Amino acid sequence: MRGGIDLGGTKIQAIVVDDDHAIVGEARRPTPATGGPDDVIAALAEAQREAAAAAGTTTEALAGVGLGSPGDVDAGAGTIAQAGNLPNWRDPVPVGERLGALLGTRVAIGNDVSVATKAEYELGAGRPYRSLLGVFWGTGVGGGLILDGREWLGRGAAGEIGHMVVKEGGAKCPCGRHGCMEAYAGRKAMELTARARHEKGEPTKLFKIMEEKGRDRLTSAVWAKAIEHEDTLAVHLIDRAYRAITTAVASAVNLLDLEAIVLGGGLGVRFGEAAAQRLAAEMRPHLFNDDRPPAVKVAELGDYGGALGAAMLVGP
Amino acid sequence: MRGGIDLGGTKIQAIVVDDDHAIVGEARRPTPATGGPDDVIAALAEAQREAAAAAGTTTEALAGVGLGSPGDVDAGAGTIAQAGNLPNWRDPVPVGERLGALLGTRVAIGNDVSVATKAEYELGAGRPYRSLLGVFWGTGVGGGLILDGREWLGRGAAGEIGHMVVKEGGAKCPCGRHGCMEAYAGRKAMELTARARHEKGEPTKLFKIMEEKGRDRLTSAVWAKAIEHEDTLAVHLIDRAYRAITTAVASAVNLLDLEAIVLGGGLGVRFGEAAAQRLAAEMRPHLFNDDRPPAVKVAELGDYGGALGAAMLVGP
Repeated sequence: MRGGIDLGGTKIQAIVVDDDHAIVGEARRPTPATGGPDDVIAALAEAQREAAAAAGTTTEALAGVGLGSPGDVDAGAGTIAQAGNLPNWRDPVPVGERLGALLGTRVAIGNDVSVATKAEYELGAGRPYRSLLGVFWGTGVGGGLILDGREWLGRGAAGEIGHMVVKEGGAKCPCGRHGCMEAYAGRKAMELTARARHEKGEPTKLFKIMEEKGRDRLTSAVWAKAIEHEDTLAVHLIDRAYRAITTAVASAVNLLDLEAIVLGGGLGVRFGEAAAQRLAAEMRPHLFNDDRPPAVKVAELGDYGGALGAAMLVGP
Repeated sequence: MRGGIDLGGTKIQAIVVDDDHAIVGEARRPTPATGGPDDVIAALAEAQREAAAAAGTTTEALAGVGLGSPGDVDAGAGTIAQAGNLPNWRDPVPVGERLGALLGTRVAIGNDVSVATKAEYELGAGRPYRSLLGVFWGTGVGGGLILDGREWLGRGAAGEIGHMVVKEGGAKCPCGRHGCMEAYAGRKAMELTARARHEKGEPTKLFKIMEEKGRDRLTSAVWAKAIEHEDTLAVHLIDRAYRAITTAVASAVNLLDLEAIVLGGGLGVRFGEAAAQRLAAEMRPHLFNDDRPPAVKVAELGDYGGALGAAMLVGP
């Protein structure tokens, strides 16, 4: 049995899988919002221990634990740096070593989006294809590439589809640049825009729905509910997001001539098949080879893709 | 010895190379502007015969001849279709077979931009790198990808960097779509824009320079001369072209995290080192990992890159 942990900005998902990638134990807990890397590492260890217990084993008995993480991941060195959504995490931290010591087994780390893409390729919606782009539409928009059956990481940082430019001199992105796809389509950027326009007097139910749901930010569920209610601002911002995603994905397809797009992430999975169909239709006018568009599929592993892909980092 | 032919929209470049890729014979002739595929194939055969004679041999004695071609190239079938810049060439034509019969040796075909990129990777500016994007800035803007030492062709049509979108809902491209990089940076699109603005009364020396040079279109040399004279419209359109190229290339780098960009093509080679430096500098603000930008190099093989890469299609 192996362990797999998906470290997200808001929650930690830990699982234990058997040799057939079946989940035999799991645990979930919130990501510490304060403190520092050691607090996060302690929470990772607790979540994995709990998942192991649920599987009737201990972490020491696991063949290994894989961790999918945001930030600048150096898989070889076992370090993570610049994890912007985690508390006080800038310099490289030897997570592999520290977490391994706490769990009593070897730990391998990888980029969260890359491992989730690999999981969809091996176990999920990407199985029929040899080349695909995973598009994870959530707080930001991450991308993962499989080319001819192999992960493509470039010099280690490939896949930043959210920072492909869809409009020269366009909207300011949370990354500080202008015109990035994520400036229009990332949930964080969308919330900033919605707040600014609401404060200037534009009517919207978004923040009322947020409060009703007991949230302090615009989650995927909040956006979905507002769209259901045909909230004008929400519809406008979601339309804009689709436009940006389709433009960037079409550009990626024109460059790489991929077989398939797999759409995941909080918003991607929430809007599901409707989003995949819309992406396929709206992408078409931008495709240079429009007689042979790529397949567009919804991620099948949902919330578990990241943890399943992480578990693959330690075999088989 | 092997033969290599670069089939361009305006000229045919044929060479004969030895086992060290040294050019031992060459010939050049204009691409037929009228007639049909058989006229083009006859001209290809004549050019290759003449190059063989210059090398002191015959085409029958060559180990094979490679052809780099525009259009929809099916290397396996040996056919070329949809070659928009060649006369009356839409349906697939069995060029490999017909040219082989005329030359008395086997013929392999490939996409013109792909073979030129491969030549730069093996013999030219790309030698130090394992992953690169070739950007061929001419009538259109073509792209070729080498990933981890291998050509990446996708399902056969990868590399359309000229049709990455740099501005949603932007300028109309000769391909019929909107906001493509080539709509701003392709020489053909630039000439259409220059003519339209000149006809509306904008002053420019571009067309006077064109006439002085005895040309009927705005060649790279015409653009270079106009820039030298600080012609306002020419400077504006070239600035716009750089902006579009840098935006698309930066998006490609954010997606693929490449080691290097190799800039070729008529305009790319004409502006040379200055263009490479400008591309590197203007790309920087768009790069997500701006602490590790890719190298930007000028293509070293110049006008012979296409023919040298074509000759590689038949070994060694």
